[in-house]
Amino acid sequence: MPDYPEALEELIDSLQQLPTIGPKSAVRLAFWLLETPEPRALRLSDAIRVARQQIRSCGRCFNYSEHQLCSICQDPRRSPRSLCVVVQPKDIVSLEKTREYRGLYHVLGGLLSPLEGIGPEKLRLDELLQRVQLEPIEEVILALDPTVGGEATPLYLSRQLGPKVVVTRLAQGLPAGGNLDYADEVTLGRALRGRRRLDDNP
Amino acid sequence: MPDYPEALEELIDSLQQLPTIGPKSAVRLAFWLLETPEPRALRLSDAIRVARQQIRSCGRCFNYSEHQLCSICQDPRRSPRSLCVVVQPKDIVSLEKTREYRGLYHVLGGLLSPLEGIGPEKLRLDELLQRVQLEPIEEVILALDPTVGGEATPLYLSRQLGPKVVVTRLAQGLPAGGNLDYADEVTLGRALRGRRRLDDNP
Repeated sequence: MPDYPEALEELIDSLQQLPTIGPKSAVRLAFWLLETPEPRALRLSDAIRVARQQIRSCGRCFNYSEHQLCSICQDPRRSPRSLCVVVQPKDIVSLEKTREYRGLYHVLGGLLSPLEGIGPEKLRLDELLQRVQLEPIEEVILALDPTVGGEATPLYLSRQLGPKVVVTRLAQGLPAGGNLDYADEVTLGRALRGRRRLDDNP
Repeated sequence: MPDYPEALEELIDSLQQLPTIGPKSAVRLAFWLLETPEPRALRLSDAIRVARQQIRSCGRCFNYSEHQLCSICQDPRRSPRSLCVVVQPKDIVSLEKTREYRGLYHVLGGLLSPLEGIGPEKLRLDELLQRVQLEPIEEVILALDPTVGGEATPLYLSRQLGPKVVVTRLAQGLPAGGNLDYADEVTLGRALRGRRRLDDNP
């Protein structure tokens, strides 16, 4: 087998840890990192280090932030009456891209899963309940993945948040541009149960 | 648009420089690098830096090496009578994987291309001619990409190396496992012109 220099071997191995990067891609990326002008290669090295040093959790919503509060929590134009609950910071990016939502967020850090031993104490649920107590929140929108078995979290939250605020969840149904015959039966069933009057524009 | 923290934006941008990493992959990898345990993320950062610091060109064959001479040039079991000329260090890895070759290498660093202004002085051709003078080389194997327009380099080399050594090139023909009807006409033409007697086992 080819005898890579040790430092190249280590570079290939650490690239291969990344998701979706297989052995062949790792080798190709490693050679690129060796052959590209040095500043470009070191730019990635530095970016990883700086990101890990500087990015922390927002003290209020647990979004990624370089400051005590993230840019959304700091933005006075965002409505404090609406709170959107997501599993991970990535989901905030997806929701922001829609440009449909102008309220605040709360990152749970996971979903309840009694089978896997993930109880309320492992998630940022206390922090959420506290925010609902202290902030002028009127609606909590659950923007959680519509996974099978992911019903425990909405159930728990709607019980805990009770009548104090309105708890809503994202609509489930056919995805935009999707063909009816490609939709699985669960999606189609939910689309059917959630049908709306034609003059009731969402 | 989502307001990523600056350090995250920079991480996404530097990932996106990598070949085959598009904007969506860059975002996914960046979030992974933020969410994975810190030592795993820093391992990649360090591996890039260390590779760029420690890996240099072998002083004899220009393969990648951490020492003055690469592991192949240092290996006394490799035959000094055979020299295989490749374009880039990566090609050495491909050839070593075949386990068919036990001689030495020489990395040219490119192919002659008069149209693109790449003349002999831009490649490691002087170094190659010098090696052929000083080392006990009997055969020079040209393991160059069989690209169209890539004929200038073999032509130049066979003239320069002249009758002093035997100059050979890799066989061209049908790839292993390839179907005849999938082969392009150039490949098929070369396979036909290069046909061999059945009893002449390669």
